[in-house]
Amino acid sequence: MPMNANAPNPTTTHATPAAVDATHHPDLRSWVASANTPGTDFPIQNLPFGRFRLRSGPLADGPWRLGVAIGDQVLDLCQAGVLPHGDMARLLASPPAERRALRQVLSAGLAEGSPHQAEWANALVPQADVVLGLPCDVGDYTDFYIGIHHATAVGKLFRPDNPLLPNYKWVPIGYHGRASTLLPSGQPFVRPQAQIKRPDAAEPVLAPTQRLDYELEMAVIVGPGNPLGQPIAVDAAEAHIFGLTLLNDWSARDVQAWEYQPLGPFLSKNFASTLSPWVVTLEALAPFRQAPAPRPAGDPAPLPYLQSQQPGTWAIELEVWLLTPAMVAAGTPPDALGQRLVVSRFTEAAYWTLAQLLAHHTVNGCSLQPGDVLGTGTLSGPQPQAAGSLLELTQGGAVPVVLDHGEQRQFLQDGDVVTLRAVARASGARTIGFGQCRAQVLPAGTRG
Amino acid sequence: MPMNANAPNPTTTHATPAAVDATHHPDLRSWVASANTPGTDFPIQNLPFGRFRLRSGPLADGPWRLGVAIGDQVLDLCQAGVLPHGDMARLLASPPAERRALRQVLSAGLAEGSPHQAEWANALVPQADVVLGLPCDVGDYTDFYIGIHHATAVGKLFRPDNPLLPNYKWVPIGYHGRASTLLPSGQPFVRPQAQIKRPDAAEPVLAPTQRLDYELEMAVIVGPGNPLGQPIAVDAAEAHIFGLTLLNDWSARDVQAWEYQPLGPFLSKNFASTLSPWVVTLEALAPFRQAPAPRPAGDPAPLPYLQSQQPGTWAIELEVWLLTPAMVAAGTPPDALGQRLVVSRFTEAAYWTLAQLLAHHTVNGCSLQPGDVLGTGTLSGPQPQAAGSLLELTQGGAVPVVLDHGEQRQFLQDGDVVTLRAVARASGARTIGFGQCRAQVLPAGTRG
Repeated sequence: MPMNANAPNPTTTHATPAAVDATHHPDLRSWVASANTPGTDFPIQNLPFGRFRLRSGPLADGPWRLGVAIGDQVLDLCQAGVLPHGDMARLLASPPAERRALRQVLSAGLAEGSPHQAEWANALVPQADVVLGLPCDVGDYTDFYIGIHHATAVGKLFRPDNPLLPNYKWVPIGYHGRASTLLPSGQPFVRPQAQIKRPDAAEPVLAPTQRLDYELEMAVIVGPGNPLGQPIAVDAAEAHIFGLTLLNDWSARDVQAWEYQPLGPFLSKNFASTLSPWVVTLEALAPFRQAPAPRPAGDPAPLPYLQSQQPGTWAIELEVWLLTPAMVAAGTPPDALGQRLVVSRFTEAAYWTLAQLLAHHTVNGCSLQPGDVLGTGTLSGPQPQAAGSLLELTQGGAVPVVLDHGEQRQFLQDGDVVTLRAVARASGARTIGFGQCRAQVLPAGTRG
Repeated sequence: MPMNANAPNPTTTHATPAAVDATHHPDLRSWVASANTPGTDFPIQNLPFGRFRLRSGPLADGPWRLGVAIGDQVLDLCQAGVLPHGDMARLLASPPAERRALRQVLSAGLAEGSPHQAEWANALVPQADVVLGLPCDVGDYTDFYIGIHHATAVGKLFRPDNPLLPNYKWVPIGYHGRASTLLPSGQPFVRPQAQIKRPDAAEPVLAPTQRLDYELEMAVIVGPGNPLGQPIAVDAAEAHIFGLTLLNDWSARDVQAWEYQPLGPFLSKNFASTLSPWVVTLEALAPFRQAPAPRPAGDPAPLPYLQSQQPGTWAIELEVWLLTPAMVAAGTPPDALGQRLVVSRFTEAAYWTLAQLLAHHTVNGCSLQPGDVLGTGTLSGPQPQAAGSLLELTQGGAVPVVLDHGEQRQFLQDGDVVTLRAVARASGARTIGFGQCRAQVLPAGTRG
């Protein structure tokens, strides 16, 4: 069935952005007391989905269970009778109308005065008693590069006069990552070894990376997919986004510098990427929707397939925290966040919207599947101190970051724990959080 | 448990290469008559594994079934009682000793005089009656770049004086591809549209690719995987290779040129990659094992983690065939191969061995999983006429290929069918083949 060869052939033409409704009312309270605590990431207005197992007991080795975070508890969706299955893939594939209906059910059932309280209370498990997994099985993992301040800062290290390549403001640059090494928050990883060619060396050596870095990213968890050959139109794209998580795309900068030409990063990235456990849905984010930052004067308009009638991003603040072995030795609890290094804002950092990423990824007919992960790339703010990686904060390792107690860091050291956090915040709305995206660096040569 | 930080930490230290045994004897004949026909890809010495469904009947929509190709038939392994399951993933994960034992059972049962003949004859299905799928579910797909003549020829188009980058002879260059768009042989695909910036244009446009190309590759189908953080030693690597298939990594060269900096190819590749259906095992390839081509004088020795005590490659001849709509209009049957464009030889084309690819991929701790696909990259021979892509054959589109009947091709046109074939051939051994890796280009804007 030939169609206009130059037009995208979208699966649907429009999606209605998630709307603000009674589930977002800032005064709404839950019968789960901890959900009403100021500062909790998981008030009743949030209701993010994740996968968990009990830390001990007969079910500890069973399949993942599907849960919703509420205060310091997890609601087991099967046990509460809310869903007839515990299958995240099936939930992700469900159409937006179904997941919106599910949100209504969850909000009503967890609200103060719910008739379900007695029944659902039996389906609550303290978060302290569970192990959280990856939020879903991931088929393909794509990482984009939409942080324009990051791209500019990194580009300057290589090309001082011409930091952004000519395609950057036209193409939402992205590449494929490794799905098998996406790790759940909390899982430590071993400092990787790989080929490194030091600037003053004639030949490369196999050695543990000396320039290990974090990257502050968010990730789209794809909901319903698209069939092969049928692009997703930009204004239909949000219907294909189930929600967002945090992503730390750990990077070995010395490995990257030697290997990345001409086909892109490989071993410098695929040893570990950490994903936060709770998927904050686009429905939960509705009160935080805002217009993207205007394109700087002189920037080209996006090509038509990237032009949206309803461009949206979200008022999300992102943080990077570092806990060092010296801090723990000095008495900081080992599960603490440590020192906050950076605060960045999603909307300021991103040159492209998430809808544009999906439209671009599929314009050639590429099929997305439920559970695919699309990373944003490093979300550095416009100010140098809001950079989302050490590479930028230290100007390529030239200027160490000085920590509060006098330690310094050019790059990560063994034992360091990096935690990413994020909250969505807007006037008149109850602030919601993303939980933690956290991992520790183990010394090279250990078994993870 | 800290270990030597500078040494790989392999899962096993050695693997014994598959040995030549009675299953390879060139005089061995099968009671399946078509397996004894000269020129068949699937004599009893081959026994490749694949997944199939019946083309019609009550089982046509059922799960994939596990089969072995023998002559023009498929042996259904479950129905023959050879395996208690039809699960390719489980077969791939089995240790080499198990799959070698399975080969013995299959060879004995299919050989002339087998007591199983009557029973197994009921488990045979004509290949003409089946649909062949991808050989396995693929978690991650990596594509390498080991064809040094390809890398040199393509590099010359961009950098005439310096075609190979400084890392090429040190690093087995590779990158991650898209698993969701790996397609089984026979599935057509739509000419993709994406951003293209023509050399004489000031701005890019969204348009169907005008420089659609094939890439002649082989692919490793990974058998047993490795745990995260535990590299595979180069001399253990062959135990992790279940077998080989053909791979056509279709490429949109105009899209690639505009998008690939700085993170590598993306939309120019992820619209479709075609995999052949039958996995030829390393056991079947034992008689064709040969030493790699010696490194040219002056090339650096591989770093120790890439140095093998038992370096091996295989005497495999590769072919590219093109069938055009004009050939079909002139009377060539639509299922014919068409005209042979190219013959190339694996060993001549490859700068790195497959074992080196696995050792490199995992040296940083990256985990491979059963069913992962590792493409070799384009396997062009040293002679210009043995190039594995049109980009090379036509010197970037400058010199069209003239077909026998007078047609020309700079790049692929709508309706073109490309078929890759390969045979392993060695003196004293029965030649075995890989079957076909075939797909047709549909016009842009159609639904695949």
